Amino acid sequence: MGSGDTIAAIATAPGRGGVAVVRVSGPDAWDVAEKVTGRRIVEDDAGRFFFSRFREGRALRTATERRPSLADSGLVLVFKGPHSYTGEDVVELHGHGGSVAPRRVLEACFAAGARLARRGEFTERAFLNGKLDLSAAEAVIDLVDARTDRAAADAQARLAGALSQRYESLYAEALELSGRLEHLLDVSEEEMPDGTMEAIAADIAQLHQRIDRLLATAHEGRILRDGALVVLAGAPNAGKSSLMNALLGTRRAIVSDVAGTTRDTIEEGLDLDGWPVRLVDTAGLRETADVIEAEGVARAESQIAEADLVIALDCDVPGAIRIHAKCDLDEPAGATSSEAAPLRVSAKTGEGLEALRQRIAERLAALAAKGSEETGDVTARQSSQLETAAQALAGVDVGDPVLAANALRQAAEAIGRIVGKTYSDDLLEELFSRFCVGK
Amino acid sequence: MGSGDTIAAIATAPGRGGVAVVRVSGPDAWDVAEKVTGRRIVEDDAGRFFFSRFREGRALRTATERRPSLADSGLVLVFKGPHSYTGEDVVELHGHGGSVAPRRVLEACFAAGARLARRGEFTERAFLNGKLDLSAAEAVIDLVDARTDRAAADAQARLAGALSQRYESLYAEALELSGRLEHLLDVSEEEMPDGTMEAIAADIAQLHQRIDRLLATAHEGRILRDGALVVLAGAPNAGKSSLMNALLGTRRAIVSDVAGTTRDTIEEGLDLDGWPVRLVDTAGLRETADVIEAEGVARAESQIAEADLVIALDCDVPGAIRIHAKCDLDEPAGATSSEAAPLRVSAKTGEGLEALRQRIAERLAALAAKGSEETGDVTARQSSQLETAAQALAGVDVGDPVLAANALRQAAEAIGRIVGKTYSDDLLEELFSRFCVGK
Repeated sequence: MGSGDTIAAIATAPGRGGVAVVRVSGPDAWDVAEKVTGRRIVEDDAGRFFFSRFREGRALRTATERRPSLADSGLVLVFKGPHSYTGEDVVELHGHGGSVAPRRVLEACFAAGARLARRGEFTERAFLNGKLDLSAAEAVIDLVDARTDRAAADAQARLAGALSQRYESLYAEALELSGRLEHLLDVSEEEMPDGTMEAIAADIAQLHQRIDRLLATAHEGRILRDGALVVLAGAPNAGKSSLMNALLGTRRAIVSDVAGTTRDTIEEGLDLDGWPVRLVDTAGLRETADVIEAEGVARAESQIAEADLVIALDCDVPGAIRIHAKCDLDEPAGATSSEAAPLRVSAKTGEGLEALRQRIAERLAALAAKGSEETGDVTARQSSQLETAAQALAGVDVGDPVLAANALRQAAEAIGRIVGKTYSDDLLEELFSRFCVGK
Repeated sequence: MGSGDTIAAIATAPGRGGVAVVRVSGPDAWDVAEKVTGRRIVEDDAGRFFFSRFREGRALRTATERRPSLADSGLVLVFKGPHSYTGEDVVELHGHGGSVAPRRVLEACFAAGARLARRGEFTERAFLNGKLDLSAAEAVIDLVDARTDRAAADAQARLAGALSQRYESLYAEALELSGRLEHLLDVSEEEMPDGTMEAIAADIAQLHQRIDRLLATAHEGRILRDGALVVLAGAPNAGKSSLMNALLGTRRAIVSDVAGTTRDTIEEGLDLDGWPVRLVDTAGLRETADVIEAEGVARAESQIAEADLVIALDCDVPGAIRIHAKCDLDEPAGATSSEAAPLRVSAKTGEGLEALRQRIAERLAALAAKGSEETGDVTARQSSQLETAAQALAGVDVGDPVLAANALRQAAEAIGRIVGKTYSDDLLEELFSRFCVGK
C-alpha cells in the first residue's frame, strides 16, 4: 500500500467548465509544485494560495528552453500534512477547465515526478492516515453519486461522522463485554457478586438490540443510494404508459389506444420529494398468445415481485397503492370518495397526480426505517457486517463465558471492519474501486 | 451593466468528480460566505483558505433551526478585490462533486443574497474592472474549448497578453499619427521642416503593413479554433471510408465492397500532431442515376470546394495530397517511388499511414501563417476589426491631413474595439454568450 510516492489526478469532473483542479499528494507534492510553478514553496505558504504560471511537461523534461512554454496558469493551494485531505503534503493547481488545459497541467506534474493516482487513492490515503474511517469514506463517494437532496443529506450526515460514532461505540461495547466475560474465568463462583452474570447478559441483549436498530436503517440506505423500485401494474390499456409520462412530465413511453403497446419494461429515474425513484412501466397483465407480449408480461410479473412499491391501475395487487386511472372518462356522478376507494387519477387532466405523488412519497418514507435523519443510513457493506455481528450475538449463553467472550470478539471484529479498525487489501480495493480517479 | 450585485455560479464542469467549485463575486461576496459558513471573514483571510461546513439554503432562510442542516463541507478561499479574477471581492467554496452537492451549495449562496451569474459574467466583470482586455477574454474561452495542445498553447499565449501588447501598440501608433496630422493643420507650409509629410506617410504605410501581418495569422487562428477541414475525395470504392477508419483508429464509417456505400458525408474530429482536424468522408465522385447518391456526390463536391486540404485517392484534385490507396493489392514489382508519385497507403496493412499523417500535418502548418507562436493568433472578431482598420488606411493621402487624420482615428477605433478601449453592450453580450455560466 505504502504512500511513499506522490500521486496526482484531475479532481474535477471532465468537460467544459471554467475551472479544473489538479490535486497532488505525497512527500514530494511541494517539490512537484515548485518545478511546475518555478516558485519556491516554504512552510509559511501552508494554508495560503497564490497565482502562478504552470510550466509545460515537455519544458520540465528538457529544462533547456530559454523561455519555457506554459501548460496553463492559475491558483496554487498549499497544504502541509497532516492538515490536508489525505493527511500528506498536498498541492492543488487550479487552472482553466476544458479537455486540454487540465491534462497539460497533469502532464507537467508527471514530468515533475508525480504518478497518476488510482481510483479513490486520495481518500484511501486519507483513511490510512487516520483522517476518516471507512464508513465516512463510503459516504464521500455516496455524496458525489447522490441524485437527490435527501440522498446527499444522508451521505453528508455520514461524512460528518454521526454514524461512525455509533459504530465506534458498538465496537467498544462489544470489546468491553468480551473483556468482562474473560475476566470471569479467573473468578470463582463464590467470589462473584450476585447478579453479575445477569447484568452481562442484559448488556449483551442491549448491544444486540442496538445493532438490530441500526440494521433497520439499511433499507432506507438502499433506497437513497439505488432508488426505490416503483412499478406500474394493470391490465393492458389501463393507462400505465400515460401515467408514467405524466409523472415524469415527458413523453418517454409510447402511448396508443391499442392494448399491449408497451412490451418491454421501461425504466426512468425520478426525484419524488427527495426520494430517488426508479419508475417502471410494464406490459399489461393478461393472457396472451403473442410470444413477445407474453415475455413482456413475465417480466412485468417479476418486476412486481421485486418492487419496493406497486401502483395498481384499476386492479388489485397486495400492498399496492390502488388508483382509478383515466378518471376523466367517468360519468360525473356516481363516484364516491372514501379512505378505501382507489385514488382517482387522470394523466390527461392532471387530476389526482399531485395526490398520487404525495402518497408515493409517504409510502417510501414509511418503508424506510425512521430515526436515521441525524446519523445517515447503513450501506450494504455495513449492513452485511452488522448482520455478522448480530448472528454472533444471537446464540450467546453467558453460562459458557469462553464461548460467549469469543462470540463478542467476533461481533467486535465485524463492527471493526465497518470503520476500518481491521481491514484487508481486498476490502480497500473493493471499496475504493467505486471512486473516481481524482478523489 | 453595473456590478452592484453579487453573483454566484458553479465554476467546474458538471458531472461526476471529486471536487466542485462554487464561485461568488461582488460587494457582498464575503457576507455570503459568512452566512454560508457561519464564520466571520476578516481582512487577514485574504489569500488564505480554511475548511468549513456549508449550511443549507433552507436553514439560512428560516434561521430558526437549532442545528442547521448542511449542504456540504469543504474549503473556502477568500480573495480581496482588486486581487481576484474579477477584481471584486471573491469567495470560492470548494465542496464535493456530483450533481447534487454543488447545487445545494449554490442554493445556499442564493439564500445568502447572491444571484446566479450570467454566461461569462465573471470574465465580463474582470474586463470591466480592467483585469484583462477583450482579446485576453476571448482567449479564456478559447482555452476552455481547445481540443488540442496546439490550440490550448495558442490560447494560453493570447491569455498571457502577447497579442494584447501588439494591439495596444498599434492603437497608440494610430492615435499618435492622427495627432501628428491634426497638428499639421495649425502649421503653415513654410514652417514645416523638410520631409515631415514623407515621414508621416512612411509611418502610416508601416502601420498598415503591421496590421496586414497580424491579419495573416487569422487563418491559423481559425484552424486552431474550428479545426482544419480535411476532405477525402476519390471514385466510388476507392477506399475512402477504410482510410478514414484507419486514420481515426476506429470503425466509424460503414465499409463494404459495394461501390457507393457512403452516401452522406461523415465528419469526425481528429488530433493530428496538435492540429485539430475535421476529417470528412464523402460519397464517391461519379455520375449516378440514384437520386440519394447524386445528392451525396453534390455534397462531396461542395465539401471539396470548401476544404482546407483534400486527400485525393487515386484521382486528381488541384492542391490535394495525392495518394495511391489499397496499395496492398498491387503487384509487388512495378511501382516506382518518386517525389511526384502519389503516396502509397494501405488502410489494411497500415503501410504509409504514418507518412500520410505527417504530410497532412506539414501541409496544415504551411497553410497556417507562421511566426505567431509567441503571440497567439487573431480570432475572427479581431480579424474583422483589423480589416476595418486596414481599409481605413488603404486610401490615406497625407496631402489632405483632415481626411487622413480622420482615417487614422477610424483605424484606432477599430483596433480599440479589439481590446475593449471602446465597446458596446451588444459587443459584450455577443462575446460573453460563448462562455459557460461559471466563467
